[in-house]
Amino acid sequence: MTDVPRDLDRYFSENAERIRSELFDLLAIPSVSARSEHDPDTRRAAQWIAGSLGAAGLKATVHETPGQPVVVGEYRDAPAGAPTVLVYGHYDVQPAEPLELWTSPPFEPSVRDGRIYARGSVDDKGQLFLHIKALEAHLAVRGKLPINVILLAEGEEEVGSVNLASFVEAQKQLLRCDAVVISDSAMFAPGLPSVLSSLRGLAYFQIDVQGPAQDLHSGSYGGAVVNPAMALARILATMHDAQGRVAIPGFYDAVRDWPAHVREQMRTLPFRDEDFRAEVGAPGLGGESGYSVLEQLWTRPTCEVNGLLSGYTGEGAKTVLPAKAMAKVSCRLVPDQDPAEIERLMAEHVRRVAPPGATATVTPLHGGRPWRAELDGPLYDAARRALATAFGREPVITGEGGSIPVVGDFERVLGAPVLLVGFGLPGENAHAPDEWMSVENFEKGMRAIAVLWEEISGDYHSQY
Amino acid sequence: MTDVPRDLDRYFSENAERIRSELFDLLAIPSVSARSEHDPDTRRAAQWIAGSLGAAGLKATVHETPGQPVVVGEYRDAPAGAPTVLVYGHYDVQPAEPLELWTSPPFEPSVRDGRIYARGSVDDKGQLFLHIKALEAHLAVRGKLPINVILLAEGEEEVGSVNLASFVEAQKQLLRCDAVVISDSAMFAPGLPSVLSSLRGLAYFQIDVQGPAQDLHSGSYGGAVVNPAMALARILATMHDAQGRVAIPGFYDAVRDWPAHVREQMRTLPFRDEDFRAEVGAPGLGGESGYSVLEQLWTRPTCEVNGLLSGYTGEGAKTVLPAKAMAKVSCRLVPDQDPAEIERLMAEHVRRVAPPGATATVTPLHGGRPWRAELDGPLYDAARRALATAFGREPVITGEGGSIPVVGDFERVLGAPVLLVGFGLPGENAHAPDEWMSVENFEKGMRAIAVLWEEISGDYHSQY
Repeated sequence: MTDVPRDLDRYFSENAERIRSELFDLLAIPSVSARSEHDPDTRRAAQWIAGSLGAAGLKATVHETPGQPVVVGEYRDAPAGAPTVLVYGHYDVQPAEPLELWTSPPFEPSVRDGRIYARGSVDDKGQLFLHIKALEAHLAVRGKLPINVILLAEGEEEVGSVNLASFVEAQKQLLRCDAVVISDSAMFAPGLPSVLSSLRGLAYFQIDVQGPAQDLHSGSYGGAVVNPAMALARILATMHDAQGRVAIPGFYDAVRDWPAHVREQMRTLPFRDEDFRAEVGAPGLGGESGYSVLEQLWTRPTCEVNGLLSGYTGEGAKTVLPAKAMAKVSCRLVPDQDPAEIERLMAEHVRRVAPPGATATVTPLHGGRPWRAELDGPLYDAARRALATAFGREPVITGEGGSIPVVGDFERVLGAPVLLVGFGLPGENAHAPDEWMSVENFEKGMRAIAVLWEEISGDYHSQY
Repeated sequence: MTDVPRDLDRYFSENAERIRSELFDLLAIPSVSARSEHDPDTRRAAQWIAGSLGAAGLKATVHETPGQPVVVGEYRDAPAGAPTVLVYGHYDVQPAEPLELWTSPPFEPSVRDGRIYARGSVDDKGQLFLHIKALEAHLAVRGKLPINVILLAEGEEEVGSVNLASFVEAQKQLLRCDAVVISDSAMFAPGLPSVLSSLRGLAYFQIDVQGPAQDLHSGSYGGAVVNPAMALARILATMHDAQGRVAIPGFYDAVRDWPAHVREQMRTLPFRDEDFRAEVGAPGLGGESGYSVLEQLWTRPTCEVNGLLSGYTGEGAKTVLPAKAMAKVSCRLVPDQDPAEIERLMAEHVRRVAPPGATATVTPLHGGRPWRAELDGPLYDAARRALATAFGREPVITGEGGSIPVVGDFERVLGAPVLLVGFGLPGENAHAPDEWMSVENFEKGMRAIAVLWEEISGDYHSQY
């Protein structure tokens, strides 16, 4: 294990105060993309990022979209044959409400106990900013970067990145690259640098069951008319078997096994089921038998009810036989499950199990492909060495049960592998009051990324 | 089959216009018990009924209650040994909204196509009033009644008869009687006088399933945490077997078989499944196999979902793993099922089938006993002859899937059998705009009730 190069390390140390002060300026901008009254602030944050990129020595452009601008910074002066890396981040933040639950105001950054408290500190302004500072350090100290860099910062991540995919499609020449690096996730535990190996995909449906044409009196009609809420319950109950496996025929056909060494490594992570159970506050855990909790969350597909609505839901008793019943149902997917194929299987299954006397309709609402990282190529190797250099230990491989749709978009449109290396921590309150980022992770993260550019240049030079 | 006695028949004919005019006065009073702004109207209706009873020759008293008054009319001058009959009805009405759907204003009675249109025309002012006129006819023509009569009219039937049971308890000496007669129901079809043989009871529950302590992200947590909405669906799906029978162990233990001749008679009623299906607007019918629709509705118990609520129920997709799920569930009961016993069985069943990892709670909300008429005694025989005399054909025996709690209260407190003989018709819009009562049924109903007092006096004299 080597050290962080002395010149870069010194730059970060000597400029620590200025860097912190700049970060606080960025965090003070309430760029809440979900609230149109904050549009001027969100645009101001875009301009701020562009200014910061320019000051670091990149060519910065603010691209208009139908929504918030996309900011692109470019450095194209690396030696011939050097790879091009695209860095993605976002400058918009979640709404800060409820404000009264914040210990210090969300847009007045404050350091307490080694943590930077502010809305956006970890999601994602702090992590985006440390990338800009890593680039700045190379250019300030050495006057050059060993790789070409495109830094792309969007302002609509917290509202579903609605304009990003079409922007990437339209600008795919500008954005052409050999690898994509994203820091918008968390480490598994303090001191454990982490590389995210997978994201689950999603197939989200609404199931509507229509019984009688209108609500009926459950006394006068009950017993001869099929109750759509009961029919819906019977449909939903067919979706798992007694072992917690999804019982939709064909559901697992495309599931690809995980490499044994990755599963092996997951089992060594510091994790206690009882801590997890206490964290969620459930009386017990469940799910597919034969898998650990982390395997269930990261490596296995699911079928969940996200919402139920039928008939009378107020206080007390109303004797109604409802005309209809609705469920929101979603499947988390793992490679190589295809949302469109899962939609087909779900619709077919519901058609097969729906009781006569009611009409069940399945409407797909939303889909996203699962993703799995290449953990063997030069990109991962470079990240492994860079993280080891900055944090003093080899990274662990983690997974993520949720979805980040842009990851798949980048891979698909740009044809480049994606590296997800984040510096958040469990309990960081990314979408809640008192969001924070660890000062130590910010400092080490900046250094890890600075080293990553060196490692990538070496790896790519030698291997491609 | 005999004719309506000439003197009574002539009285009804000669006074038809005055009787109609008085009925219209009663119907014009907007005695909507559910609306406190109508309290003065509701009290006015009580006074109106008392005045009408007094004019007919009964001793009328208005009894205050914590809510609307109870009006009692008494005739105690029948020959020694004559039975005492209690007539029950109500002078309050449903709200008339939405007013724009009425062809003529709800409180301006109007006759069209042989129907009296007004709020309360059939439910229950018209039917209560024809009882008063039947008593009046006897007293006017003959100066006496062959039986003792207590007429009880309440003003809170449409808001759950909240003060009636305690009034009956408190006044049980005053209300002591040999039989109770109620006209607040409908005939099976035009020209088919009907005696209601049964009412179903009710056991109404709320089932709450608690999973994690708060809503979770379905991506980050889905697969390891028991989903309470899915758990609820699995619980509900255990409540019926594949034949549509309720699958709660012990549920049918107390169900008493129906007399073969009653079932036989129900099968001869003019009823087409397809008409019923079209009326409810469902794609097909369902329920317990091996029973006709009318048997399902009148003679068999049920288990229905009345409401479902969990997680996200708005438009589009939200990836939430809900903390909790709720179902309103109710069982219609038939003799001799006991609501308290069904509550016990339901709680025990849910406890047994609820999956681990979530906590299911069953809360009883409401209960009422089922009721079945004695179809062999002198009361029923008298009704059969009276209806045959007035309508020119023997009555049919019908059932009712809903519940009328006061029926059980009268039987329990007063120890007297109840006769439910109503003169409404299918499609009468009892709780909807354009409520109506058939003019023919009003005229024949008055005569049938007048004859009933004769028939009861004869029957009871000879048999007791």
